[in-house]
Amino acid sequence: MKFTVASRLAYEVRETTVFILNIEAAALRNQKILAERLDLTPAVALDRHELDGGTRLVRVVVEPGTFEVDYEATVELSMYDADPATLRETPVAELPLEAIPFLNPSRYCESDGLARFAHREFGALPPGHQRVTAICNWIYENVDYLSGSSDSQTSAYDTMVQRAGVCRDFAHLGIAFCRALAIPARFASSYAWQLDPPDFHAVFECYLDGAWYLFDPTRKAALQGLVRIGVGRDAADAAFATIYGDAVMTGMEVSIAPLEEVEDEEPTVRAVGIA
Amino acid sequence: MKFTVASRLAYEVRETTVFILNIEAAALRNQKILAERLDLTPAVALDRHELDGGTRLVRVVVEPGTFEVDYEATVELSMYDADPATLRETPVAELPLEAIPFLNPSRYCESDGLARFAHREFGALPPGHQRVTAICNWIYENVDYLSGSSDSQTSAYDTMVQRAGVCRDFAHLGIAFCRALAIPARFASSYAWQLDPPDFHAVFECYLDGAWYLFDPTRKAALQGLVRIGVGRDAADAAFATIYGDAVMTGMEVSIAPLEEVEDEEPTVRAVGIA
Amino acid sequence: MKFTVASRLAYEVRETTVFILNIEAAALRNQKILAERLDLTPAVALDRHELDGGTRLVRVVVEPGTFEVDYEATVELSMYDADPATLRETPVAELPLEAIPFLNPSRYCESDGLARFAHREFGALPPGHQRVTAICNWIYENVDYLSGSSDSQTSAYDTMVQRAGVCRDFAHLGIAFCRALAIPARFASSYAWQLDPPDFHAVFECYLDGAWYLFDPTRKAALQGLVRIGVGRDAADAAFATIYGDAVMTGMEVSIAPLEEVEDEEPTVRAVGIA
Amino acid sequence: MKFTVASRLAYEVRETTVFILNIEAAALRNQKILAERLDLTPAVALDRHELDGGTRLVRVVVEPGTFEVDYEATVELSMYDADPATLRETPVAELPLEAIPFLNPSRYCESDGLARFAHREFGALPPGHQRVTAICNWIYENVDYLSGSSDSQTSAYDTMVQRAGVCRDFAHLGIAFCRALAIPARFASSYAWQLDPPDFHAVFECYLDGAWYLFDPTRKAALQGLVRIGVGRDAADAAFATIYGDAVMTGMEVSIAPLEEVEDEEPTVRAVGIA
Repeated sequence: MKFTVASRLAYEVRETTVFILNIEAAALRNQKILAERLDLTPAVALDRHELDGGTRLVRVVVEPGTFEVDYEATVELSMYDADPATLRETPVAELPLEAIPFLNPSRYCESDGLARFAHREFGALPPGHQRVTAICNWIYENVDYLSGSSDSQTSAYDTMVQRAGVCRDFAHLGIAFCRALAIPARFASSYAWQLDPPDFHAVFECYLDGAWYLFDPTRKAALQGLVRIGVGRDAADAAFATIYGDAVMTGMEVSIAPLEEVEDEEPTVRAVGIA
Repeated sequence: MKFTVASRLAYEVRETTVFILNIEAAALRNQKILAERLDLTPAVALDRHELDGGTRLVRVVVEPGTFEVDYEATVELSMYDADPATLRETPVAELPLEAIPFLNPSRYCESDGLARFAHREFGALPPGHQRVTAICNWIYENVDYLSGSSDSQTSAYDTMVQRAGVCRDFAHLGIAFCRALAIPARFASSYAWQLDPPDFHAVFECYLDGAWYLFDPTRKAALQGLVRIGVGRDAADAAFATIYGDAVMTGMEVSIAPLEEVEDEEPTVRAVGIA
Repeated sequence: MKFTVASRLAYEVRETTVFILNIEAAALRNQKILAERLDLTPAVALDRHELDGGTRLVRVVVEPGTFEVDYEATVELSMYDADPATLRETPVAELPLEAIPFLNPSRYCESDGLARFAHREFGALPPGHQRVTAICNWIYENVDYLSGSSDSQTSAYDTMVQRAGVCRDFAHLGIAFCRALAIPARFASSYAWQLDPPDFHAVFECYLDGAWYLFDPTRKAALQGLVRIGVGRDAADAAFATIYGDAVMTGMEVSIAPLEEVEDEEPTVRAVGIA
Repeated sequence: MKFTVASRLAYEVRETTVFILNIEAAALRNQKILAERLDLTPAVALDRHELDGGTRLVRVVVEPGTFEVDYEATVELSMYDADPATLRETPVAELPLEAIPFLNPSRYCESDGLARFAHREFGALPPGHQRVTAICNWIYENVDYLSGSSDSQTSAYDTMVQRAGVCRDFAHLGIAFCRALAIPARFASSYAWQLDPPDFHAVFECYLDGAWYLFDPTRKAALQGLVRIGVGRDAADAAFATIYGDAVMTGMEVSIAPLEEVEDEEPTVRAVGIA
């Protein structure tokens, strides 16, 4: 399935400032970039780097004045649907060892502190895709989605107590619970079809039965319409812009649209595999 | 300089248990492994994996009973001494982009929350190796080294308030301050010559002027006698043993000895480069 | 009902040390002290002070050497049983204003941070004694009673995440939930009949329908056999000994026994009123 | 010295709501209320309660609609100046025992967690008024006064790390340090002469040498022009309005003016005694 994604960021830059941008669709096996352009105004030189997981960083040094970033891409997703009922958890004894770091606690996902709760609440459930779905359901039912209720320092530990957050908080809590249960889990920022209002969106991925699968505990986006941007341990690895200097964002637009007719996602549990 | 390092771990295993061990000397450019052996008793099969930074993971599945791990290696270190006075900080605009993830906050290094303090205390100091040394001096002077004062969930945020910790806490605080100042910093577990009593030791590394340099704010070990084991974002990435199952440690010995005569480290500031 | 309570504390005092002791049965309307003695060895002079809520403080200044505190009392409790089903909550509009401070968050009971959860989980339950019982049941079912799982800095916020604690943690969580729901709640240390092994015990009290009622979410003691010692906002107000100086506890014994035949408490919900 | 103080609060009340107001000048020995009026619009019935420390609570039940509170008072302060150099600390052995609760940690003043730092930084200073002044100077020099940098859940622990806050955070940190050093300390909200812009202000009080003395680590107000309102353990005890129901503040004005010519406060350290 093909999508057009776009984002426009505008800044007022007050001193020479370095931007690390992460807004381009990631280079992933099931996510093929058919076309793309990145326009910077003024047209400054840029460095590029692709991290191990496919995350693409762009670095620019910008002089004082206005600065605009304009990105557009056509992306073909080739996710596949698996049968949630048959996807088992991969035992730690069989995990690919490169997935091991995604069992470790991270800045916003204190799986160590949440281990007892995760085992009490989810430990006795049958392992597999269905258990992660149960985790997502728990988050959806027990945490209020509430704009402005959290900030950039809010972690899973806080969300567990305060019971309110936005998409990144929902993803962090899901990741923390999964890691506590020895299920490798990672964070993904994305362009998200059907997200209303349009914005960058955060979801998470779990390694199950030999592949990574997508989960969105907010239920706000269609899993088969997620164009992933940054993939990492948590939101610390997937900021759309990190700023070293002095710049203030003055505008932001994000959009995604399918390039072909799409059947609306059925409101059923799906296992959407991505690698 | 050549060192013999060794560690012996003993466990009482109570149910089938997966161990992820990280006790072997890392595979690093300036750290050449001349000889090594890893004996497991009983002799179970093992999987190996080398992470990007050179960290070597070993996975074993162990049945109930006693389990012993016996590791010994001869390692040649070829660190070099640089002049601390001339090592500048690499501006973010010039950093290799693969170092960028080491600017992000991590589980035990909340550089985001500590940014204001780091800038107030260290922001006006001349940048470079000397500034990181000033950070290490601040930690040494303002935090008590006190066994038992912290636990596995203690983070830089806690240490900043409680002012007591052990080597891993000292390293976490140093890493957090450096990242807050846009200096890439990472955690390293190690065999540490002159550490008394012998144990695994934690230090940190900063990217300065084109290479990584070692820092030990505890002042307990000799920098040129550090055989590094696990290198990562923080202690979460460098546990010597992670256990999935039920096993209790019943013994542990760690040792390191130079294979040749060594001049005692001078009590002066050194810049020990490692890559 | 009459009880004999006793406690013996022994210390090794290393420098001139001030002790603030709070081990005597509180002076309360439904708790009549028939006889008591407090022996200090060596026999140092003491100051006494009774706080507003009936808590009795003793202060002594002790010179280096061994120091022993030996307390024994005969106490008559005249608690009454009310019908849990008919005890309503007193609306804030009708609360005696001296109960208002027990709606405020305190050191170990962050009712402000836990408000959303308390309302989500308990907000829709019928108000009254039964709602506080539901809170106690929730704590009993969702938190593990586990010696050594918490320390003197553990607060309700932590227990909510970590799901393990001891009696003081159970009480703190109950207090925090009640205050979040506008039910005045306070902490009480006590001699607790049937507690096994014998020790000081922590419970909490709520203001309901015109009086204070006892609650013990640990279900470890008999409510009608609680001889209260310190009553306050949380454990910070009810330490059995606060030490200014340098002294190490070398022994502690706590006991309570009924002076008459007692029918065993029925395993049913009781509303035990105390004032 | 005489002052006129006034405050006007306006609310949009959306459902029957209980307000606990704490805006009237406290009833204190050195603070004599010569005249005052409290007008409520609409004119609802009110309950009053004076807490032990002199804090005066007013409770009203308000029906939906607009609600306005208009308070004005003439207050005569009879604080006295003591010589800071001669005010000693009262040893715990000699403290009036009713001051003991102000040594305990409270919701926003975790003196327990900050004890090591307080002893390291201030423990060796000569005890007395001068030591508390040194604490205030440290706060002034090490914490940025920054509107919007903290919220209602920010505690001394957070401010210690984040190094930014407003008057209540400055007071909380001062209180926590003092309690950690065994100096009784409490929080006071106030009308503050010379505060610019006018607002309710938070300061703290310490028990030294037989009396309570005022401290303002923000250096924003004149100590001899503080008309205190709520006195308690921390901000949890001194909110100007606590709301049970649903009401939104739509306006707030606070003012204070001297009724006679006042010499400007000299920029020297003063010991202002209040009881």
